[in-house]
Amino acid sequence: MAGAVADPAGRAEFRLMAGVALADVLDAARRLEGVAHRTPVIRSRTLDALADAEVFLKAENLQRVGAFKFRGAYNAISRLPAAQLARGIVTYSSGNHAQAVALSARELGSHAVIVMPSDTPKSKMDAVRGYRAEIIEYDRYTGDRESIGRQLAEERGLALIPPYDHPHVIAGQGTAALELLTEADDLDALVVPVGGGGLIAGSAIAAKGVRPGIRVIGVEPEAGDDTRRSLAAGKRVRIAVPRTIADGQAAPIPGELTFAVNKRLVDEIVLVSDAELREALRFAVDRLKLVLEPSGACGVAALLCGRVRPAPPRIGVILSGGNVGAARLAELIAGR
Amino acid sequence: MAGAVADPAGRAEFRLMAGVALADVLDAARRLEGVAHRTPVIRSRTLDALADAEVFLKAENLQRVGAFKFRGAYNAISRLPAAQLARGIVTYSSGNHAQAVALSARELGSHAVIVMPSDTPKSKMDAVRGYRAEIIEYDRYTGDRESIGRQLAEERGLALIPPYDHPHVIAGQGTAALELLTEADDLDALVVPVGGGGLIAGSAIAAKGVRPGIRVIGVEPEAGDDTRRSLAAGKRVRIAVPRTIADGQAAPIPGELTFAVNKRLVDEIVLVSDAELREALRFAVDRLKLVLEPSGACGVAALLCGRVRPAPPRIGVILSGGNVGAARLAELIAGR
Repeated sequence: MAGAVADPAGRAEFRLMAGVALADVLDAARRLEGVAHRTPVIRSRTLDALADAEVFLKAENLQRVGAFKFRGAYNAISRLPAAQLARGIVTYSSGNHAQAVALSARELGSHAVIVMPSDTPKSKMDAVRGYRAEIIEYDRYTGDRESIGRQLAEERGLALIPPYDHPHVIAGQGTAALELLTEADDLDALVVPVGGGGLIAGSAIAAKGVRPGIRVIGVEPEAGDDTRRSLAAGKRVRIAVPRTIADGQAAPIPGELTFAVNKRLVDEIVLVSDAELREALRFAVDRLKLVLEPSGACGVAALLCGRVRPAPPRIGVILSGGNVGAARLAELIAGR
Repeated sequence: MAGAVADPAGRAEFRLMAGVALADVLDAARRLEGVAHRTPVIRSRTLDALADAEVFLKAENLQRVGAFKFRGAYNAISRLPAAQLARGIVTYSSGNHAQAVALSARELGSHAVIVMPSDTPKSKMDAVRGYRAEIIEYDRYTGDRESIGRQLAEERGLALIPPYDHPHVIAGQGTAALELLTEADDLDALVVPVGGGGLIAGSAIAAKGVRPGIRVIGVEPEAGDDTRRSLAAGKRVRIAVPRTIADGQAAPIPGELTFAVNKRLVDEIVLVSDAELREALRFAVDRLKLVLEPSGACGVAALLCGRVRPAPPRIGVILSGGNVGAARLAELIAGR
């Protein structure tokens, strides 16, 4: 990855196998300035008392499109040459990355094609269409979204922006941690949700780049512990497609690039159950006054359940997103 | 009210009949530094598009105790002499002011007595007891909370800190608007919930003090329009106890001190229905990813319903609180 700017800290060791370095996160931060929200860092004394630590919550549920995904998508798309922007972009996602690509493409004057399962909830399709993106549906049981995406890219000359396994996407996702570490000094640990691994890879590059001693702790749903297993095995392990309410973390295998970063920079993965995620969602509503989607609450769940032990004095947590919808939130709170 | 500090802007005209001036708000801000949260200002491009304005949301639902009330209570109690703090404090409230007084008293090493209706939900009583306050119950149909409070104050030598009709409470509530105007330049209007009138009185003093041309617009629930009627009549008008989901705005008559401020500084009062408040709560969950109580959402409701017309280019809105609870939020969203 061409370092567009020098790494001011001169930490060349962070230019890793995956080709993403602190300099790339810093460069992404400059591209996102005035485009992405600089989301607030939220404090709760109740949570501090329960977690036995000072906790700093980076509220990416308040990011544009309701999730950190906007950072990576915009960073990647903004780096495409004008001729490519004119031809367009393609991705596959039924979740937050779909909206992030659709909005970024619109903002950058490009055209996005989103490959989505035909049983995607209408509200999510409408959100993507609202950003003027084109939807190509496929059958999630018989189709292969990655090959459909690649084929569309080839046939129509579109740039493929995958949800996590892409250096510019990883660099963009790291900007949330960078902002958090700028605002909350002296963090001892950073707790980050893990799905395909893009958010934690970018976060780890940013956090260990500016604060080498920080512990980076990933959180996976119990049913979707592919990264924990993969780190234990020293290589990417595929599991059965996870059944979990944390739909943002249902990847069955870590990404190639993301795993190359994470096996070097992630210190630990902890797990939370769906019941613990529900409890954390309820806590977020009752005490934090924040709407989180299940994946967005996994860091809070890990702290409330004492999974980070011994609790370091100052902990940063990335609340990854809040796209759950009022009706579904009511169901989840009621335990359905 | 003794001006503990000089008014740096020299705007003596803001030392009003009610005895609260910009200098008092500035002084309250200094007392609250490091004690109250400096709550974030949240932006939503979706809301901007629907309101046809740039909207800056001051998220007091993220304040300590979940509402702006902590500001006024702490400011008032922190000014009591040590001997009074040793004797203790009394107030009457079943809502956010009760928790605000209880927490402030604990933080300042004092003892709080809270007069609450005996049918107050257990969760609210537990929250107050959690801050180690003493609860005195009364029958809301036969008892008079104000006289019970005054009697307790006399008998036990307690300082009475009423929910809104008190100059130090008003000054403290004004600090949220002060922060908002510091962070969001050039606001043309400020939209503020109106219950007893303490929040909007403090907000108007702060806002017109630092930006004399700003329009201050209050929002009341349709059923609880005592301040709108009072402003129209030029004197305090009592209405029947309002039936509305906005329990934080169910006052039947404006406060004396607050009305003295508001009749000079408030430009307009607009009304929203309970159905519109529910819609705003749903919008807050779906799009803003914030949990608001009905009163906390009335500014958003007013903008979504086009009550502020013509919409000025840049509008600040105070989201006053988020104490609704997960189960009740689910009910309200479902339209119950």
